[in-house]
Amino acid sequence: MYGALEGGGTKMVLAAMDENGNTAERISIPTETPDKTMPEMISFFRKHDIRALGIGNFGPLDLNERSETYGSITATPKLAWRNYPLLQTFRDALRVPVGIDTDVNAAALAEARLGAAKGAESCVYVTVGTGIGGGIIIGGKPVHGLMHPEVGHALVAPLAGDPLPDGSCPYHKHCLEGMASGPAIEAKWGISAKELPRDHPAWVYETEYLAQMCVSITMFCSPEKIILGGGVMQQAFLFDGIRKRTSELLGGYISPLGGSLDDYIVPPGLGVHSGITGAWLLAMQA
Amino acid sequence: MYGALEGGGTKMVLAAMDENGNTAERISIPTETPDKTMPEMISFFRKHDIRALGIGNFGPLDLNERSETYGSITATPKLAWRNYPLLQTFRDALRVPVGIDTDVNAAALAEARLGAAKGAESCVYVTVGTGIGGGIIIGGKPVHGLMHPEVGHALVAPLAGDPLPDGSCPYHKHCLEGMASGPAIEAKWGISAKELPRDHPAWVYETEYLAQMCVSITMFCSPEKIILGGGVMQQAFLFDGIRKRTSELLGGYISPLGGSLDDYIVPPGLGVHSGITGAWLLAMQA
Repeated sequence: MYGALEGGGTKMVLAAMDENGNTAERISIPTETPDKTMPEMISFFRKHDIRALGIGNFGPLDLNERSETYGSITATPKLAWRNYPLLQTFRDALRVPVGIDTDVNAAALAEARLGAAKGAESCVYVTVGTGIGGGIIIGGKPVHGLMHPEVGHALVAPLAGDPLPDGSCPYHKHCLEGMASGPAIEAKWGISAKELPRDHPAWVYETEYLAQMCVSITMFCSPEKIILGGGVMQQAFLFDGIRKRTSELLGGYISPLGGSLDDYIVPPGLGVHSGITGAWLLAMQA
Repeated sequence: MYGALEGGGTKMVLAAMDENGNTAERISIPTETPDKTMPEMISFFRKHDIRALGIGNFGPLDLNERSETYGSITATPKLAWRNYPLLQTFRDALRVPVGIDTDVNAAALAEARLGAAKGAESCVYVTVGTGIGGGIIIGGKPVHGLMHPEVGHALVAPLAGDPLPDGSCPYHKHCLEGMASGPAIEAKWGISAKELPRDHPAWVYETEYLAQMCVSITMFCSPEKIILGGGVMQQAFLFDGIRKRTSELLGGYISPLGGSLDDYIVPPGLGVHSGITGAWLLAMQA
């Protein structure tokens, strides 16, 4: 049995899965403080006598294997988890190999191996929901480098008439998360994204910013697929608008795409299971 | 002897180099039409009886090895070279292995192996001159994927007061090349970049756009180094301003950088030789 953890800011999803990816048990617990949440998670994985653990966790994380704090959460605004040695605590308690990456890199890995980008060497997975985060696979592997991608805080150009042109992020003016996450939509228009009618102008702005993001991803990362998931993207009508506007903004510059972006900007092949499946893949690798 | 070609829109730089990188002969010829320029280049490489050829060429290029037109130039505005089968023509004429990549991916490769990013697994090399182009190394290899990165046509957010806020690119509103290349600077301010005094407001805008680019590179690619070269970056005073503004825009988000970006945003370690050195590396690999 292998352990998989998809660690989020509001809930932790834990699964025990066999080597074929069949799930023996899967639970979800609220993310409270490490003092309370860690022992619960450790006892779940102990109960299943796992051979290895894979973690896809909210960032930022220290993913530099040569670092003394490898596998720790770093400068998160979730103060109880700041500088928490996540990988090390699990490894010490469970005495099994532990693999770790960001939640979105794990989801991107799962989509590249088994999902919408199956067979591709590269893809970008972006979740648009409470926050915006992106994971990037290049050459079949998650991108790390200096740290790891932080797609949600890349800058976009405000569109004229935006009621909150600087966005709602406390750290960056007009970054993606501050301009296009679920809470940003609500801050701009005073209505929850879930309740906005389809013809509301909010969607014109949302489409513009997510299309600008797809242009940047194309220009900087040149992936074979861009996969958009998360709560906001449950509004499936957004896909056509984002593809159309991305194509306009690209100005015909990326010839392999031809006229249509239908196979380029796509929903996750694994639905809402990309993250936990990626964590299982990290366990198998570990 | 190995052949190296750095193919640019105005000139072709050709070199014959040994396996240690010592140059036997190096020439530069103007880029005219393939009919005229190709035979000159072929006879140079024949004269040196090269064992392999490496090409770093202006793009866009078809770098998909499974494509029938692998190694061709694609939708370039240089019409005489559009759809020209560059790799195949050299391979047929010289009957040696030929490696090819974009000029900037070749330069990035050279900087990662032998230059400012020596020892790093990842770096981004951007040339800011007549155009803006970027090459990206991740996991020690140039990034391809869908096509190859096209950093110059990524979007930036216009700064208030810019005399030409849409930029000068015919394909994209406010893309980097249209906002911050040498010709864009001249189009905006009516003075050549070389003649602009250091206290001219043009440099505030230039610094802003290149800093926005460095933020996007950091958020999307997470490289260990960003290397800025090309004619405009000969104005070495720009580096300090770009580092300072990038740090402000990052808002402390990328903790491994700490306070200083002095070792993160740097000039090329190989000076103006990154491109030809990268072409030589491609020949050695081929």
